[in-house]
Amino acid sequence: MTSHHQPKASVFRPPAVPDVEMRGFWGERIDAIVDRTVMILYDRCVVAGMLDQIDPTRPVPEVKMPWHTRADGTPDTVNVQMFWDSDVAKVIETAAYALYRKPNSDLKAKMDAIIDMFAGLQQPDGYMNSWFVRMQPGQRWTNLRDCHELYCAGHLMEAAVAYFHATGKRKLLDVMCRYADHIDATFGPNPGQRPGYCGHEEIELALVRLGRTTGEQRYLDLARYFVDQRGQQPNYFDVEAAERGVDPTQWRHKTYLYNQSHLPVREQTKVVGHAVRAMYLYSGMADVATEFGDDSLTDALKVLWEDLTSKQMYVTGGIGPAASNEGFTEYYDLPNESAYAETCAAVALMMWASRMLGRGPDRHYADIMEQALYNGALSGLSIDGSRFFYDNPLESSGGHHRWIWHRCPCCPPNIARTVTAIGSYMYGVSSDGIALHLYGASTARLKIGTTTVNLTQDTRYPTDGRVAMSIGLESPSHFTLSLRVPGWCENAALSLNGQAVKPDEVRGGYFHLKRNWQDGDRLELDLPMDVRALYAHPAVKADLGRVAIARGPLIYCTEEVDNGADLNALIVPDDLSGAKTVPLPELNNTVAIEIPARREQWPRRNGKLYDPHKPDHIEATARLVPYHLWDNREPGEMLVWVRAGAGQ
Amino acid sequence: MTSHHQPKASVFRPPAVPDVEMRGFWGERIDAIVDRTVMILYDRCVVAGMLDQIDPTRPVPEVKMPWHTRADGTPDTVNVQMFWDSDVAKVIETAAYALYRKPNSDLKAKMDAIIDMFAGLQQPDGYMNSWFVRMQPGQRWTNLRDCHELYCAGHLMEAAVAYFHATGKRKLLDVMCRYADHIDATFGPNPGQRPGYCGHEEIELALVRLGRTTGEQRYLDLARYFVDQRGQQPNYFDVEAAERGVDPTQWRHKTYLYNQSHLPVREQTKVVGHAVRAMYLYSGMADVATEFGDDSLTDALKVLWEDLTSKQMYVTGGIGPAASNEGFTEYYDLPNESAYAETCAAVALMMWASRMLGRGPDRHYADIMEQALYNGALSGLSIDGSRFFYDNPLESSGGHHRWIWHRCPCCPPNIARTVTAIGSYMYGVSSDGIALHLYGASTARLKIGTTTVNLTQDTRYPTDGRVAMSIGLESPSHFTLSLRVPGWCENAALSLNGQAVKPDEVRGGYFHLKRNWQDGDRLELDLPMDVRALYAHPAVKADLGRVAIARGPLIYCTEEVDNGADLNALIVPDDLSGAKTVPLPELNNTVAIEIPARREQWPRRNGKLYDPHKPDHIEATARLVPYHLWDNREPGEMLVWVRAGAGQ
Repeated sequence: MTSHHQPKASVFRPPAVPDVEMRGFWGERIDAIVDRTVMILYDRCVVAGMLDQIDPTRPVPEVKMPWHTRADGTPDTVNVQMFWDSDVAKVIETAAYALYRKPNSDLKAKMDAIIDMFAGLQQPDGYMNSWFVRMQPGQRWTNLRDCHELYCAGHLMEAAVAYFHATGKRKLLDVMCRYADHIDATFGPNPGQRPGYCGHEEIELALVRLGRTTGEQRYLDLARYFVDQRGQQPNYFDVEAAERGVDPTQWRHKTYLYNQSHLPVREQTKVVGHAVRAMYLYSGMADVATEFGDDSLTDALKVLWEDLTSKQMYVTGGIGPAASNEGFTEYYDLPNESAYAETCAAVALMMWASRMLGRGPDRHYADIMEQALYNGALSGLSIDGSRFFYDNPLESSGGHHRWIWHRCPCCPPNIARTVTAIGSYMYGVSSDGIALHLYGASTARLKIGTTTVNLTQDTRYPTDGRVAMSIGLESPSHFTLSLRVPGWCENAALSLNGQAVKPDEVRGGYFHLKRNWQDGDRLELDLPMDVRALYAHPAVKADLGRVAIARGPLIYCTEEVDNGADLNALIVPDDLSGAKTVPLPELNNTVAIEIPARREQWPRRNGKLYDPHKPDHIEATARLVPYHLWDNREPGEMLVWVRAGAGQ
Repeated sequence: MTSHHQPKASVFRPPAVPDVEMRGFWGERIDAIVDRTVMILYDRCVVAGMLDQIDPTRPVPEVKMPWHTRADGTPDTVNVQMFWDSDVAKVIETAAYALYRKPNSDLKAKMDAIIDMFAGLQQPDGYMNSWFVRMQPGQRWTNLRDCHELYCAGHLMEAAVAYFHATGKRKLLDVMCRYADHIDATFGPNPGQRPGYCGHEEIELALVRLGRTTGEQRYLDLARYFVDQRGQQPNYFDVEAAERGVDPTQWRHKTYLYNQSHLPVREQTKVVGHAVRAMYLYSGMADVATEFGDDSLTDALKVLWEDLTSKQMYVTGGIGPAASNEGFTEYYDLPNESAYAETCAAVALMMWASRMLGRGPDRHYADIMEQALYNGALSGLSIDGSRFFYDNPLESSGGHHRWIWHRCPCCPPNIARTVTAIGSYMYGVSSDGIALHLYGASTARLKIGTTTVNLTQDTRYPTDGRVAMSIGLESPSHFTLSLRVPGWCENAALSLNGQAVKPDEVRGGYFHLKRNWQDGDRLELDLPMDVRALYAHPAVKADLGRVAIARGPLIYCTEEVDNGADLNALIVPDDLSGAKTVPLPELNNTVAIEIPARREQWPRRNGKLYDPHKPDHIEATARLVPYHLWDNREPGEMLVWVRAGAGQ
């Protein structure tokens, strides 16, 4: 077991995205987004009509998205169009990272134009939301439960920070600071303020990001207020509904478990409700815990972390099995073919995990961040950056495919902004140390106090586990370098300047090297990647008698294009010593795994329903590819949890 | 493969229930119903308020059952209370068989009183339905789609025939003949008649039963009319809805697949919709096919039979996997724990199967009748006759238990009337032969023309496969005796008067013995019952890597009371040669099966979610009991499809 205990003083913050330049595996994926996805995202927002709503110089448009319908047939008070600001914000955030990587005057002009629209929307008091300024004026702050109003503000704050970091332009940042000031004045415990918080968490973590960037303590305080206020009695959403004159029990989501406002956050012990909301809440809580050194929040988060990762998470890092609430159900309810496992939820789990690292490196969190990143999150984007998964099942009979767009287009910009920002997830920087949470070919420019450390990784990770690092320094500097040893790795080896070396300390699954570093110091970390089988907890009925095949951080799957139809006819042995890795240049230069297996001989859909004869077996080879790459070739069946049996 | 082709002239009809006296296995189950269940059924109908609605001498009661609610929040046009006549009718039918078996003046007086109530309800024109006479007068025949009006008439016809056969009393029979005459005048193709039929099939088979008992051809003709008219265009339910001034598309069941009126019956090829409705329709179609020698109906039924039994039936004979429509979904969609598999649906499958035997013995049908009887149907009734299953899952985590009553109490009287009438399912009698479809200790008095054959079975079936039969005749008589050899039996042996004998013909899975029978002739049929494993079609994903254990007609299951918790940790070998049978006197004198097995060592709910270590195994013994007996002892987990693996 890894320890959760860290020295109290350690505060690790992520570097800004432009401070890490990605190459190799991630560099290619980012380039696909820079070269293609970002314009696709922009174009589809335009086609959807989002800019017509945001641009205050255009006529106020009709409502274009259908309203949800209540059980009694009347329109609900919320529709998808209400949170278009957030979709556009994530596009701006993605574009910011793209512009940093590759200048693009056309894209920049488009983003500047959108930023001008938002600036033009801003009211004299600082309020700024396209829906409530243009579509439903006069109704601001009347339905925090359903209308995503603070959520939209949060995404725009994130966009503002990103755009400022990447381009140096302050316009959106200034707009959002004014809006944040307005929100700060509007919400709080004082007379005349609203003791509310958002039905869809997001603004909490965004305020921390804004506070870190601007140095404004009030934003951190407001984030803490929203976190602390959530779930207090009387429930704000009850009060607010009464003010609107509606019955709060007549709500289609029925229970405040849905938005995690059923209890004060420090009393919550079970991960419940809408998965993305839950993860964004916990992310904000973790940020506040880091900034305020709040152990009571961290303790609550540790309980929730255990709850999620030991009872409610797919092996892909996907979370939220049910479509009905886009979220959680019962413990161990992890069906494969009907898995919802929204791309946004895996992204959000990464976000939470990365923020749990704010109080110090601990692979308890970083392992899961990597698991969600390389599997349930990255699966959401096709190799070429043009197609998207919204839900990420672990089994498909052949009917599940990437789509071009979605009426609720949250996932495409979410995975795009995450991949383009991956550098900021790789590192944590404290006042006296650097933690490497993720490996990947890259160069980072990291500041420890006034010292700049240029840290270069040369590696084919995740295809290969050897990582060569070099330290660039203007002058020798004393700090701790912490290198994560993934939990899946059994015989990690480390060398310094060509000599095998023992770390000064092994703690929380990290090699800690405390020394006076010299310019040109070279480290080599070898993380052997054996093919391994994972067995699910037996309470996960869908996975009984099955294994998931993994190598390094990648969960593998079988696809029909490699194995023919009827993937459930393939049975791999328990003993994987016969497994081979096979380079697969045609599929993103990945490594496939081939395992000597058996194939049950199935009649094709014409046999008896029940028969006393066990199906015959023939020898076969099961070929598996990384889960995140599935449905990039010929469409067909897919299966993560392959059947396993004795080596007969 | 068994042949479906039979000589055209053969018409096999079931004996009346009182013509077969049951002993042994079925005798005990019937006695539990006679001694206990029938009064439970009566009492609960009284408590529910059914007699207040039916008795015309009492004040018209309030509506006691909640109305269904439409999607728009308004009450639907149907509630469960509308078909209370049918529930009471099935109680009368059960009571009739009980009274035949054991005189009970109290029960008889209660039934006579109810019959008087129904007689008192009858209108001058013959109409008779408690709901539309007393609760919603003036609305008769306005909503055949939803209101179960002809369905209730059908069940009362069945009750009338049963009560007449068992007691010789004609009152209810006469009432129902007058009502049948009224229905015959109301429905039909002529001017002034309604070209309709019932949304819930039942009256078709009931009219055949009434016609056979009374000799009235018009009832058979009307049954044929209802069958032929179903699904013709324009759809009657559309027309009727328009007459009521409602939009037929605003219907909560959405599609006429639900009640099998989407196509004319001869064009239907897929078993769809509400399972009980479908089976009752096919039962009526089979009766009409038998009575009219209608090959076009029989051909359609053969297609539907294959569709059901090769793609949509649980190994227990349970059918209709989904609760949402109480019916069918997609092919091979047979989840175990969430199986709906209503007791009524398995009973109704037996009814259909038995009627497919009307055109001659064929184990293609009789095997399934037996499979549904001993498993998915009989499971609906506790050993002592006091508790009931409505839905019959094939796996339970420990939360599924027999109940005392149900707001829609269709199943308890349905399984009770079926078990008490089991003798009529055992035989088919034609003008020149007797077919034995089911075995069980009993004495039957069967009429071939003017000859009475007393056929006695002495056997411990289904516990043991040896069946000794003797023929009682006043004088020698020439006829064909057809003995079913179940498909599960591999080495059936036959002897006549102590000498091994070959049948004159083996056809359709029956031994046919054509001879001049003498009083006292003795037959011995030996049907060896080996323990066997059944493998499901691989498209049934829930059953992959699993087997169902069977012996004779009985499907077995594991229960927690015998095996401890975590039944999914038990893995039985593919080779069952080590299986033993063990008498289990404490559980209805059944035979348990014990199989040397392995048990995975599971951490109890506190382990990691995913782990590279395969669970250890220890040796164990799996004990299985007949599925129909589950939940008669300590409550706990239950599992039919046990995990199976190599004999390691």
